[in-house]
Amino acid sequence: MRPYELTVAEAAEAVRTRRLSPVELVDSALERIARVEPHLNAFTTVTADRARDAARRAETEIARGTHRGPLHAMPVGLKDLIDVAGLATTASSRVRAGHRAQSDSTVTARLASAGAALVGKTHTHEFAYGLTTPQTANAWHPDRVAGGSSGGSAVAVAAGAAAFALGTDTGGSIRVPAALNGVVGLKPTYGLVPRHGVTSLSWSLDHVGPLTRTVEDAGLVLAALAGHDPRDPASVAAPTAEHRPGPDTDLRGLRVGVPGNYYFDRVDPEVEAAVRRAIGRLEELGARLVDVEIPMTRYIRATHWGLMVPEASAYHERTLRTVPDLYGADVRVLLAAGERITAGDHLRAQRARTLMGRAWREMMEAVDLIAAPTVPLTAVESGRTDVTWADGSVESVADAYVRLSAPANLTGVPALTVPVGLDSAGLPIGMQLMARPFDEATVLRAGHAYERTGTARGLTPERASWRAP
Amino acid sequence: MRPYELTVAEAAEAVRTRRLSPVELVDSALERIARVEPHLNAFTTVTADRARDAARRAETEIARGTHRGPLHAMPVGLKDLIDVAGLATTASSRVRAGHRAQSDSTVTARLASAGAALVGKTHTHEFAYGLTTPQTANAWHPDRVAGGSSGGSAVAVAAGAAAFALGTDTGGSIRVPAALNGVVGLKPTYGLVPRHGVTSLSWSLDHVGPLTRTVEDAGLVLAALAGHDPRDPASVAAPTAEHRPGPDTDLRGLRVGVPGNYYFDRVDPEVEAAVRRAIGRLEELGARLVDVEIPMTRYIRATHWGLMVPEASAYHERTLRTVPDLYGADVRVLLAAGERITAGDHLRAQRARTLMGRAWREMMEAVDLIAAPTVPLTAVESGRTDVTWADGSVESVADAYVRLSAPANLTGVPALTVPVGLDSAGLPIGMQLMARPFDEATVLRAGHAYERTGTARGLTPERASWRAP
Repeated sequence: MRPYELTVAEAAEAVRTRRLSPVELVDSALERIARVEPHLNAFTTVTADRARDAARRAETEIARGTHRGPLHAMPVGLKDLIDVAGLATTASSRVRAGHRAQSDSTVTARLASAGAALVGKTHTHEFAYGLTTPQTANAWHPDRVAGGSSGGSAVAVAAGAAAFALGTDTGGSIRVPAALNGVVGLKPTYGLVPRHGVTSLSWSLDHVGPLTRTVEDAGLVLAALAGHDPRDPASVAAPTAEHRPGPDTDLRGLRVGVPGNYYFDRVDPEVEAAVRRAIGRLEELGARLVDVEIPMTRYIRATHWGLMVPEASAYHERTLRTVPDLYGADVRVLLAAGERITAGDHLRAQRARTLMGRAWREMMEAVDLIAAPTVPLTAVESGRTDVTWADGSVESVADAYVRLSAPANLTGVPALTVPVGLDSAGLPIGMQLMARPFDEATVLRAGHAYERTGTARGLTPERASWRAP
Repeated sequence: MRPYELTVAEAAEAVRTRRLSPVELVDSALERIARVEPHLNAFTTVTADRARDAARRAETEIARGTHRGPLHAMPVGLKDLIDVAGLATTASSRVRAGHRAQSDSTVTARLASAGAALVGKTHTHEFAYGLTTPQTANAWHPDRVAGGSSGGSAVAVAAGAAAFALGTDTGGSIRVPAALNGVVGLKPTYGLVPRHGVTSLSWSLDHVGPLTRTVEDAGLVLAALAGHDPRDPASVAAPTAEHRPGPDTDLRGLRVGVPGNYYFDRVDPEVEAAVRRAIGRLEELGARLVDVEIPMTRYIRATHWGLMVPEASAYHERTLRTVPDLYGADVRVLLAAGERITAGDHLRAQRARTLMGRAWREMMEAVDLIAAPTVPLTAVESGRTDVTWADGSVESVADAYVRLSAPANLTGVPALTVPVGLDSAGLPIGMQLMARPFDEATVLRAGHAYERTGTARGLTPERASWRAP
């Protein structure tokens, strides 16, 4: 295997034991970027010099016996909403032309002190306000959407251009592109990972989290990111937990809720079949399946919009006034609409969220985990705007992609997506695992057990069409 | 002394040691109500039968050796926003005609299990949306305002009609009437006392707390009220603390912040002089005075309004539509105005509050306490709408009364008002003590030390004009 193909856990072990040089690892990723980036356009900027500097520093440190841990020398991509001192945070927007971040975001600083090597900033749907990342191609098929808004991060990880990446998730923006590109994505519990220095879409729903090739890697990255920072007002001082899942794949005692409503409604049959097979695998590993009913589902969409849209408009208030034409048309329309929402509607959404959080906590007293599809359909053709479901209903692609992921943003619960197979078009399918707030350990444990034994073992982007002759 | 004149601590000790019969205590309060209520109109309803039943039960229990603690058999008044099963919660509003509460609020149930004897529900400014309580007369002067919105509770306690009372405080509604009637009022830390079953004015600013004759009594009542209840989404599981202040009046080591801005601006000279004398007394007791600058003061008023007004309108949305004419004109205008506020303005207020809370936490790293006036002027003549200050500026009475108390609602910090003397018209003056969130112990300790040794010792409503020949 070439170094760029290794998971974080594998590469870290090779680096720690000096079987793999940090410089070799980073060079391998940079070469991979050079090869695939013309096809994928996952990056807004590639920071080869920074990456090589970090690799050389890591080489020196490790030669002296200082190994910083599992992220030391790991090539990382950061969604281009995340500030890195001295670089532009473009948010994939013309509004940010000439931008230069003064200092590192909290997560950037934490990755730097863990020794990670930044290979580049990755594309996002403009200001994270959408679910497709139109600049970037799906890692599995050049004519399919990457998903978004963390599309660049998902594609970079899927293509081997980074060992891991960070994304942000306000309605599904980590999980949707992770699922559509066959990688793992984790939206942690609201408040667990500080967002200081990360451009906001909707601060009461925004999360930062990892995109990786394995669940184990997601746990390793989360461990470096989590922890209180008072500069993010929503950051909480949660008890430190062990995030790396153990080798045990025995799920006996685990109660897995399988939704009887909502999560399997208007879902592509191939997606449903793959997810139900994966849930069956959890049962074979010892989990007990429990029927659950998702509460307050008719309020999910209005509540999500009622919170996100005015918060986004408040964030962009000034630039929407001064440079409206620099926004893409889709984002400009949403921002303008947000200014017309009344405080009453916004308060209704805030109250509905409170009630929904309470109802979910009650639901989750009976189960340890909810298992469901991440997205109801795989990556659609670029430019496609609507989906027609078997019941004849028509839904916008954006609404379909956000529908199953938004509840975890509203309730703040941790949500992991793991690849569980390919559809007949060869496109990846994701299963979503959700747990009680701050119980990342349980989603990681179950996801890891599935990954080590499941039907999708061996799923790899090597089969993606950009690798075909 | 007649039983109704005793503080809670004194009456409790007499009851516990069987020197005072619960029936005698409650009858004394009921007789007092009969005598003063025609002059004061503090109550929406007097619950003499319930009070006598509670007194007889207490008598039986204590005779059997079961003394429930310091509130057992204590005559209590509840602001008529607080649900008591089987009684109307009138909110002093025609909108609530025919109302009947199905169950007790959390605080009602906690007082009942502590053995308190409900003597009546007390008047509020309609739905707590104002600072005067026009139905009720000041306990010290028949032509002066009671202050509000917990005017009935403050007047009842000042007049001996209840040993203690509960109020609610969204911008000062416990502290303002307490100060204007020469009693103690405590707005606890946001989230410490559950609000389940209490009519809301603005849920992100609402607090429930005690009005008492002494600081010691405030601590005794708080101990019975505090503690987590998940039915109030803002309720927090705070560590239990001892709230009864000890006998020690030594304040050495205490750092008392004295604001150089805001809290002494546009304050009546007699109020300022009394509060500065009281602060001098804290220094004599060993406290170290520290100059502090209150942050973000120019945002206080807009932030308070930007949060309260839309939340109040959201709460009243339906009845404002169906029975607008049943509201008083002042409240109806405010509710209608709140419907026109945009989500953007509301979000601006929410963000300003977050920043303000952070700035206050930083300020309070250097001090343990802030000492300041509670209100900038004593009780004005009923019907007066404006105040003209020495600098020539004109301010509405409502704005003046809320100006110094609202910051503790925005920041959530505990705030106690203690009487510190009378002005030359014989009207009470209050000093406000604020501490870090959940540090009720410090405001109670300092307030108690002041009360036991201070210049206003012996302040009593016995001098109030309704007692004059």
